[in-house]
Amino acid sequence: MKLKDLGEDALIDIIAAAYSPATGNGIEKALGDDTSVTTQEGSRLSTLVTTDTLVEGLHFKDSYSTPYLIGKKLLSVSLSDIAAMGARAKYFLISLVLSPECTDDYVKELYRGLNERAEEAGVALIGGNTTSAGNGTNVMTSTVIGEAQAEKIIYREGASAGEDIYMTGTVGDSALGLKVLGEDLNEPYKDAVRRHLDPQARSEAGALLGERSLATSMLDISDGFMKDLSRLTTAGKVGAKMMLTDLPLSTDTAKYIELTPKGYDLLLSGGEDYELLFTAKKGKAMDIQSISKELGLRITNIGETTSEEEIIILDHDNKPIELKFKGFEHFK
Amino acid sequence: MKLKDLGEDALIDIIAAAYSPATGNGIEKALGDDTSVTTQEGSRLSTLVTTDTLVEGLHFKDSYSTPYLIGKKLLSVSLSDIAAMGARAKYFLISLVLSPECTDDYVKELYRGLNERAEEAGVALIGGNTTSAGNGTNVMTSTVIGEAQAEKIIYREGASAGEDIYMTGTVGDSALGLKVLGEDLNEPYKDAVRRHLDPQARSEAGALLGERSLATSMLDISDGFMKDLSRLTTAGKVGAKMMLTDLPLSTDTAKYIELTPKGYDLLLSGGEDYELLFTAKKGKAMDIQSISKELGLRITNIGETTSEEEIIILDHDNKPIELKFKGFEHFK
Repeated sequence: MKLKDLGEDALIDIIAAAYSPATGNGIEKALGDDTSVTTQEGSRLSTLVTTDTLVEGLHFKDSYSTPYLIGKKLLSVSLSDIAAMGARAKYFLISLVLSPECTDDYVKELYRGLNERAEEAGVALIGGNTTSAGNGTNVMTSTVIGEAQAEKIIYREGASAGEDIYMTGTVGDSALGLKVLGEDLNEPYKDAVRRHLDPQARSEAGALLGERSLATSMLDISDGFMKDLSRLTTAGKVGAKMMLTDLPLSTDTAKYIELTPKGYDLLLSGGEDYELLFTAKKGKAMDIQSISKELGLRITNIGETTSEEEIIILDHDNKPIELKFKGFEHFK
Repeated sequence: MKLKDLGEDALIDIIAAAYSPATGNGIEKALGDDTSVTTQEGSRLSTLVTTDTLVEGLHFKDSYSTPYLIGKKLLSVSLSDIAAMGARAKYFLISLVLSPECTDDYVKELYRGLNERAEEAGVALIGGNTTSAGNGTNVMTSTVIGEAQAEKIIYREGASAGEDIYMTGTVGDSALGLKVLGEDLNEPYKDAVRRHLDPQARSEAGALLGERSLATSMLDISDGFMKDLSRLTTAGKVGAKMMLTDLPLSTDTAKYIELTPKGYDLLLSGGEDYELLFTAKKGKAMDIQSISKELGLRITNIGETTSEEEIIILDHDNKPIELKFKGFEHFK
């Protein structure tokens, strides 16, 4: 069967089935989370590694982005994975597959973006690799290495029923921004466009949630709120219940919802939010809000986990909503 | 200027210039060697990371390879980098950009190859990422993580004048194999074809050279013997002098040389040998040969380093040879 008929989740199942889960040899976590976690013999700290790929035409287009912004985004997507483990990023490597028609100015701008994001995040470039794309398109892979104390790392599967569910920032801005770039809308939604082109990893929030042991489970929203919420609850063998009106919106997405019937379809299914979605024990609310204050970053309690393994989102009439799209599907 | 006019080395210079060399924060080596080397605070061992990318149509073709062999090769190329540091590989991650037209059988075969090579090398899959290639070609990236005691790691720049130069295996088989796949030759050169499609990383030889402190500098031959020899001597600020007849040939390459005037042009410039090229103090010859015996792997003393920073290869008449090609040039 072709991948376009199978979809990404089935592909990941195939890959997972090809491997018995790696254990021993210092491995704390192999597949199935935002990053791998390994611990060197005799070391106080665990090492986290993640790798992400951006493909021209799919994850970025030269027609509406710039190499500078692509560089920033390339690093951000992997920084976000490290943050989602409650860890701190330390080093990165960049693997570039570039068209021979690419210019040196393009590469310089790409690295200016990488460099700027790296400095903000306090990570150092330690390696990489460049290859010609031949007749193909540009493909860029970032690998980020982080570290954390083993007992502070936050995995996907730690949630229990009756906990609070939180997310950082706002939902769906990137999806709205992408929509603006692809079609003519009456509103410019400039902040949403910026959020799509220059996503920020929530590095400090993630690290603090880990270091202060505030979250029971966490991931970053990269393939759409609904899809990633479903991954988090499935991993924790819990369900979730929330009010649609509790989901945090920006000025742009609030306006979009106001103007668009069924607008939530886009916001809850579009990818690349790069916000953190996590669960926490009741009673941690004040500690979590103090991180929000320290960082000037919105962190919203959006609902709670339930023992029934289903996700229920209630609209303002207290009726469960039905969404047309479930999240971003690679390959399909 | 376009990358096809600049070439890979100029591109790497641009990238290096965009960055002041990263130091501190546990970094022993960032750019400029086969892998990065970092050491976690308080750890006895250093961590080595390398990333390599194979592009369909350039590094492999479905018309003459199989996904099983591509999987093996994908891992081998990164294992070879770890070996070239005198270290042992431990974990790997795979990032796949696959066409939606790709089948699940293709992916299964790819992972069967990866799995087999991983078991041989004793490395465990700990992570990765899959993305659609859209309308583009398949691009596959392997990231391998290894470890070694910091003081045992072998860098590119350690050579001094008056040392012996060695290489493992034989030279140019992969280039000959690729030639066979691309055009009709009178001889089938089957072993050379196999060497191109299924290169072996010299993992155990590399690790033992490191652990026994036998090499002063080392790299793997991936972009052609001449180009990589020149990288090794440039890094060590030395030259090299050798006899053409001392270069180790396989049955296939020896026959090719016999039948082909100027046949060395191909063998010394073609990429993807994945043999180790290293320098060692005089007096280490017996220790090096005992590794050769232990592993049943040819290791040949091919010449010596000189204080004049030039590479001289003498033919059977003691005349310096001139090569038409200098090595594999990405982008050009």
